[in-house]
Amino acid sequence: MKKQYYFDHAATTPVDDRVVEAMLPYFHAAFANPSGSYTFAEDIQDAVNDARKQAAQFIHASESEIYFTSGGTESDNWALRGVMLANGQKGKHLVTSAIEHHAILNTCHFLEEHGYQVSYLPVRPNGFVSPSELKKAIRDDTVLVSIMFANNEIGTIEPIRELAMVAHAKGAFFHTDAVQAFGHLPIHVNELGIDLLSASAHKFYGPKGVGILYKRDSVSIDPLIFGGSQEKNLRAGTSHVTGIVGLGAAVRCCAADLSRRMHRETALRNHMIRRLTREIPNVKINGDLYRRLPNNISASFGGVEAESLLILLDACGISVSTGSACSAHSDAPSHVLKAIGLSDREARSTIRFTIGDDTTQEDTDYVVEQVKESVKKLRMYSPFYEKRG
Amino acid sequence: MKKQYYFDHAATTPVDDRVVEAMLPYFHAAFANPSGSYTFAEDIQDAVNDARKQAAQFIHASESEIYFTSGGTESDNWALRGVMLANGQKGKHLVTSAIEHHAILNTCHFLEEHGYQVSYLPVRPNGFVSPSELKKAIRDDTVLVSIMFANNEIGTIEPIRELAMVAHAKGAFFHTDAVQAFGHLPIHVNELGIDLLSASAHKFYGPKGVGILYKRDSVSIDPLIFGGSQEKNLRAGTSHVTGIVGLGAAVRCCAADLSRRMHRETALRNHMIRRLTREIPNVKINGDLYRRLPNNISASFGGVEAESLLILLDACGISVSTGSACSAHSDAPSHVLKAIGLSDREARSTIRFTIGDDTTQEDTDYVVEQVKESVKKLRMYSPFYEKRG
Repeated sequence: MKKQYYFDHAATTPVDDRVVEAMLPYFHAAFANPSGSYTFAEDIQDAVNDARKQAAQFIHASESEIYFTSGGTESDNWALRGVMLANGQKGKHLVTSAIEHHAILNTCHFLEEHGYQVSYLPVRPNGFVSPSELKKAIRDDTVLVSIMFANNEIGTIEPIRELAMVAHAKGAFFHTDAVQAFGHLPIHVNELGIDLLSASAHKFYGPKGVGILYKRDSVSIDPLIFGGSQEKNLRAGTSHVTGIVGLGAAVRCCAADLSRRMHRETALRNHMIRRLTREIPNVKINGDLYRRLPNNISASFGGVEAESLLILLDACGISVSTGSACSAHSDAPSHVLKAIGLSDREARSTIRFTIGDDTTQEDTDYVVEQVKESVKKLRMYSPFYEKRG
Repeated sequence: MKKQYYFDHAATTPVDDRVVEAMLPYFHAAFANPSGSYTFAEDIQDAVNDARKQAAQFIHASESEIYFTSGGTESDNWALRGVMLANGQKGKHLVTSAIEHHAILNTCHFLEEHGYQVSYLPVRPNGFVSPSELKKAIRDDTVLVSIMFANNEIGTIEPIRELAMVAHAKGAFFHTDAVQAFGHLPIHVNELGIDLLSASAHKFYGPKGVGILYKRDSVSIDPLIFGGSQEKNLRAGTSHVTGIVGLGAAVRCCAADLSRRMHRETALRNHMIRRLTREIPNVKINGDLYRRLPNNISASFGGVEAESLLILLDACGISVSTGSACSAHSDAPSHVLKAIGLSDREARSTIRFTIGDDTTQEDTDYVVEQVKESVKKLRMYSPFYEKRG
C-alpha cells in the first residue's frame, strides 16, 4: 500500500493502539450489559465509571457531571434542546455564533422552527467571537449561550472565560462545543466558567460512536433520547461499553501526552505555515495565528479551486479537506470562511491541513512540495489567476 | 475465572469473533472519516455501504432504506418523533401497546406532553396485541402505529402482518421495534407490511453503540439529531464506522446461521421449560408457548422473590434478569407482566432466562438444578409460601 499522508486529523484520528487494547476485552470476555443486576455486569459498570472518572478529571469536573452519548453531534443537540426545554421559565432565547459547527447551527434552526429565538453573533476577521458583541445580544430571557471552544475549520480558540462571564452576568448558562479542543488543549471547566461541554472520542485518538456531554450538576436538562434509566435517567440506551472504555483510555493517553503533543504539533504547524506562505505566492492563512489549535492550518490559495487541489493532492496520497468533513459533500462555500469575511472565490480556494501524532516533519515537507507543484499547475490553467498574474 | 452461565442474551450478546475480526482494521489502518473527499475515505464509504446492503438484504429492503443510528433506543425515538413531526398534516395521534419497551413508552409520554395523543392497546394474557383492538383504537388522524415484533420480557411474537394491515387500511404507517427479533427470526418487511423497523447490533452478536432504522422510502421523516449531511441529511454525526462494519458482519453471520440458531435455541428452550415446569412445583411460564422468541423463558416462581433468586443464582455464576436490563434498577413491578394480568406479587417472582449461541444443554441442566435448589431454599423462608403450602 502507498504511504498515506493523512492531514485531516480534524475530521477524525486513528484509534491509538493502547486504546484498542483497552477495548478488546469488552467485546467478548467482558461483554455484559452494565444495566444487569449480577456480578458479571458489575465489573462492566466499574469499567464504565472508570472512563467517566478519566473524562471528569481531564476537565476538572466531577464524575457525576459526565454523560456518555453517541458523539459530539448528539452532545450538541442534547445540550441545546435539553437546556432550552428544561429552563423555559427563564425564556426562549439562545445566543450562538455564526461560525459554529452544523450540529449547533442546524439544532438552532430546529429550535427556531419551534418557537425559540436565536441570535447569531458575528466574528472578527481572525474568527474571534467578541464578548462585547455577546453583551449586546444577550437578554434577560436568554437561557443559554453556546460558543465553540475552537473552530474546526480555521482553528481559532475563542475567549471562553470572557464569554462565559458575560453569559453568567445575565443568569444564562454557557455551553461550549469542544469537539476540536478536547484532548488537544487544557480545559478547566470551573476556571473557564463552562456549564456544559461537548466532546467526541474519535477526535482525540479514541473510537468513533462515543462522546460526552459534561453538564454542571446545577444545570437542569431534559433528555434528548428517552427509554431506559441509563445515565441517571437522562440518556437512555444500552451503554456503548467498548466505546466508553476506549474513550476513557484515549483521555488517559491525552492527559499523559498533552503538553508534549501541543508543543510538537505547534512546531510542525508553524514550520508548515512558514514554508507555505514563504514559498508559494498569494497564500493567506485563515484564523488567528497565535490563539489557534496546535494542529490546524487553514490556507487560501489565490486563484486555485480547492476541489481541484484536493484531487491533485489525493493522487499523491495526501488527504486534506476543503472544509469540515461533515459538509464535504455540500456545494455551498463554507459558512465559517464567509463569516470571517472571505469572498465566495476565496472560500472556494481554501484547504484545511490538520496534523496529528503520526505526522512527521518529513511528511509536512512532502506535503508542502506537492502543494507548491499542484498550485503552480492549477494556476497555469486558471483564467482568473492568469488575468491577475 | 469461574465458568459463567450467561442466561441474559436478551440484555446483550457477546460479539462474535468473526465480527471483531471484521471491525479491527477500521480502528487504525482504515480509520478515515467516510465523509472525506479523498480516496482514503472512499474505501470506508464502501465498507459502510456494504454493511447497509447486508442489513437491507436480511429484511428484504433496499439499501436506501437503511439508516445507521446509535442503537435501538435512538431508532425507536427517531421513528416515533420523526414520523409524527413530518406528518402533522394527517394528525397527531399514535397507537402503541401497553407492553412496549420503555424506549417507545417514554417517547410516547414525551409526545403526549407536546400535544400528541397516544392510545395504548391492552394485550391478551399470552401477550398478543389484538388486531381487532387496534381496529377499535385507530382513527382517521392516526399517523403511526408502533407495535414491537417480539416482546423483550415474555418473548411473545406479535401478529405483525395483521396489525400492519389494520394500520394501512386507515392510511397510518406501521413501525415495529424489532430489537429482540432482528437476527433471531426471519423478517420480510414487504410481506409483513412494515414501514419502519428498529434494530440493535448488540442483541445479535454485534457491537454495542450501533443500530439501524429501516424506513420505507415512501415514508416522510424528520431528523432527530441535526448537524452534518450524513445518512442523506437525516442522521447527523460522524458515522460509527467500526460499529457499522461490525453490524454488517453480525448480520452476515445471522443470515448464514438463522434457521440453525432458531432450531437449536427452540430445542434448548423447550427442554428447559419442560424441566422447570415438571420438576419445580408452582411455576408459571409467561407469554405464548408457541409464537415465542426461540431463546426466551419467562417463569414466575410462586412465593419466591425474584430479586433473592437472582442473588442466589448469581452466587452460582448464573446471570439472569428479573425484567428487562433497561429497568433492572427500577423498583416498580414490570409493566409487561402487569399488562398480561400478573399480580404485583407474581410479577415480582418472575425471572427471565434468555439463551444464546454459547448455551449448551449441560448449561441449561446446571441452571435448572440451581434454580430448583434455590427456589426450594427461598420457599422455606417465605412466610407467604408456607401459608399456602
